[in-house]
Amino acid sequence: MTQVLALSGGIGGAKLAVGLQHVLPPGELTVAVNTGDDFEHLGLSISPDIDTLLYTLADLANPELGWGRANESWHFMAEIERLGGESWFRLGDKDLAVHIERTRRLNAGEKLSGITADFARHFGILSRVVPMSNDLVRTMVITDEGTLDFQHYFVARRCEPVVKGLAYAGAADAQLVPILREVADDPALQTIVICPSNPWLSIAPFLEMPAWRELLVEARAPVIAVSPLVNGQAVKGPTSKIMGELQLEQSSATIARFYEGIIDGFVLDKSEAHLAPEIGVATHVTATLMKTAADKQRLAREVLEFAGSFGKL
Amino acid sequence: MTQVLALSGGIGGAKLAVGLQHVLPPGELTVAVNTGDDFEHLGLSISPDIDTLLYTLADLANPELGWGRANESWHFMAEIERLGGESWFRLGDKDLAVHIERTRRLNAGEKLSGITADFARHFGILSRVVPMSNDLVRTMVITDEGTLDFQHYFVARRCEPVVKGLAYAGAADAQLVPILREVADDPALQTIVICPSNPWLSIAPFLEMPAWRELLVEARAPVIAVSPLVNGQAVKGPTSKIMGELQLEQSSATIARFYEGIIDGFVLDKSEAHLAPEIGVATHVTATLMKTAADKQRLAREVLEFAGSFGKL
Repeated sequence: MTQVLALSGGIGGAKLAVGLQHVLPPGELTVAVNTGDDFEHLGLSISPDIDTLLYTLADLANPELGWGRANESWHFMAEIERLGGESWFRLGDKDLAVHIERTRRLNAGEKLSGITADFARHFGILSRVVPMSNDLVRTMVITDEGTLDFQHYFVARRCEPVVKGLAYAGAADAQLVPILREVADDPALQTIVICPSNPWLSIAPFLEMPAWRELLVEARAPVIAVSPLVNGQAVKGPTSKIMGELQLEQSSATIARFYEGIIDGFVLDKSEAHLAPEIGVATHVTATLMKTAADKQRLAREVLEFAGSFGKL
Repeated sequence: MTQVLALSGGIGGAKLAVGLQHVLPPGELTVAVNTGDDFEHLGLSISPDIDTLLYTLADLANPELGWGRANESWHFMAEIERLGGESWFRLGDKDLAVHIERTRRLNAGEKLSGITADFARHFGILSRVVPMSNDLVRTMVITDEGTLDFQHYFVARRCEPVVKGLAYAGAADAQLVPILREVADDPALQTIVICPSNPWLSIAPFLEMPAWRELLVEARAPVIAVSPLVNGQAVKGPTSKIMGELQLEQSSATIARFYEGIIDGFVLDKSEAHLAPEIGVATHVTATLMKTAADKQRLAREVLEFAGSFGKL
C-alpha cells in the first residue's frame, strides 16, 4: 500500500522525502526518482539521484557534501588520480559499491527498478524507491559552449556555461516502471507530491515522458508541488541561475506556471506569500526551508494536511 | 635496453623480480607476467599477477597478505557485502583503482600491455612489466569437483579440490606481446630468468604458448630457472599439494624435468643440494628462501653471476 507517491530529484527532494517517510506509517511512501542525470563514468552506470534517495532514506547520506555517503573515505579516488584516470567526478570508497554492483547487474540483464528495490531492501529502507523509468532518459544542457550531458554541465563545468535550453533525450519513448502504475491506481493513494527539486533539471525529465504526464493529469489523488525557491532564490543548486538564463522571472509563480495543468495545489515559502494570489491553483504558505529533521517532518505533515483539504478523492 | 628478462607468476616470482630490479641498473629488467590467472569479477577485468608485480616493484605491496596494497582499506568490500554482492574475492579500496581503470581502458579498445606499461609509469616503476600475452589465456583446473577457473579453485575453494590436471584455454593461439620479441632479440640481453613461481600454475601458461616456447628454446641468452621448492616444499601456495595430486615426486628434480629442453641452468636450495647430480643441466646451489630485501638481492646477484658463467652469448 502506498499513501504517498513523491517525485524527486536529488538533495532538495530527498529532504522532503525523508520527512514524508518519517511521518507516514512504514512502507506507505513510494519515491519515483529522476534518472535524467544518470551517466556512465569509468565504465560504471551511475544514478546520482537514486543514490541520494537511497542514502538519505537509509540515514547514510553525507550531510556536509549533500551527496554521497557519510563517513566516506577517498582511497580509490587518490589511486585513480595516481594512475592518470578521470577524477572530476568524485567516487568515495563506500559509494563505489552501489555503482559496481548496479553496473554488474545491469550488464547481466536486470532492470534498474529491480536492482534499486533490492539495494533499498539491503539498506533497510521500508519506503519504495523506484526509478522514473527503466528506459534511458538523458538530460542534455544546451549552453553557450555547446550541448553538454548533465554531469559535465553540473559537475565538470560547475554550472558555469550559460543555459540556452534543455533537452531530455529518450523521454518521448520511455515507459513507466509498472509498479508506478500500480501505485497510481492504488485506492489507498492519498497524494502525489512533487518534491522541491529543480523543475527544469529534476522534474522535467518525468514530465517529458508522455506516460508520466498522463499519470499525473489523470491521477485521482491530488498532485501537490512544493516550490524549491525561498524568496525567489534556490536553497542549493543552479535553479535561480538557470531561470535567469532562460529569461524566466525568478519566483515561485514561474514554478507554479511550469506545473500548470498538472498540479492541484502548490506549497510556497512565506517569503513569497504575496505571490499566492497570482498562482492558478490552491496554495499553502509556510516555511519551506528544511534544515533540521524537525523542519522536514513539519513540512511533510503540512503537505499531507494540505493534500487532505482537496475533495478530489 | 634489457639485460634481464624474467618470467613470473605472483608473489614468489615478484620477490626475485624486485631483487633483480635492485641489483640491475635502472630500466634493465623486463618482467613478463602470467595472465592465466586473470579473470572477470564484478564486471571488472582483474589481473592478479600483473598487479602483484606492479605493487611489488613500486614498493606498494602488502607484505602481510602477499597480495594487494599496503595500508589498504576495505570500505568498498563491506558495502558490497551489505548489498548482497559477491565478496569471496577481496578487493581493497586502493586496489580497486587498477581494476576499474584497466577495465575501462580495455573496453575502450586498448591493449593490456599498453595499459600495464602506463600503470607502471604512473607507479614510478623503471622496470618494464609486460603481460605474457595480450590474448586471452585462462588456466583451468581440472579437479575431482569438476573443472574450475583458476580463481574459483585458488581463492573461492582455497585449493581444496584434488587436482587431476590443468588446461590453458587460449594458449595455443595466443601471441607474444611484440615488445617481448624485441627484448629477446636485444643484443644487450644477458639472461632469461624463470622466477621461483609455481611451474604448473604460473609458468606453464607461458610454455603452452608456442610463441613463448620458441622464444625460450631459441634464445641466445641462457635461460635460468629458480626452483620454488625448499626441502621439497613450496614456501607459499599449493605447489606441493598439486605435485602430490598429479603423482609427481615433490622435489626440485621434478621442477627441473618440467623445464627440460628450455633451461640452461637451474638454481636450487641448499636443502636439496643432494639432487644436483640428477638434474640434467648446470646447477647452482644456494639459499633460495627470500625473507628480507637482502635475501632477494643476494639471490638475484647469484642468479646473474650463475648466468654469466654460461658461454652461450
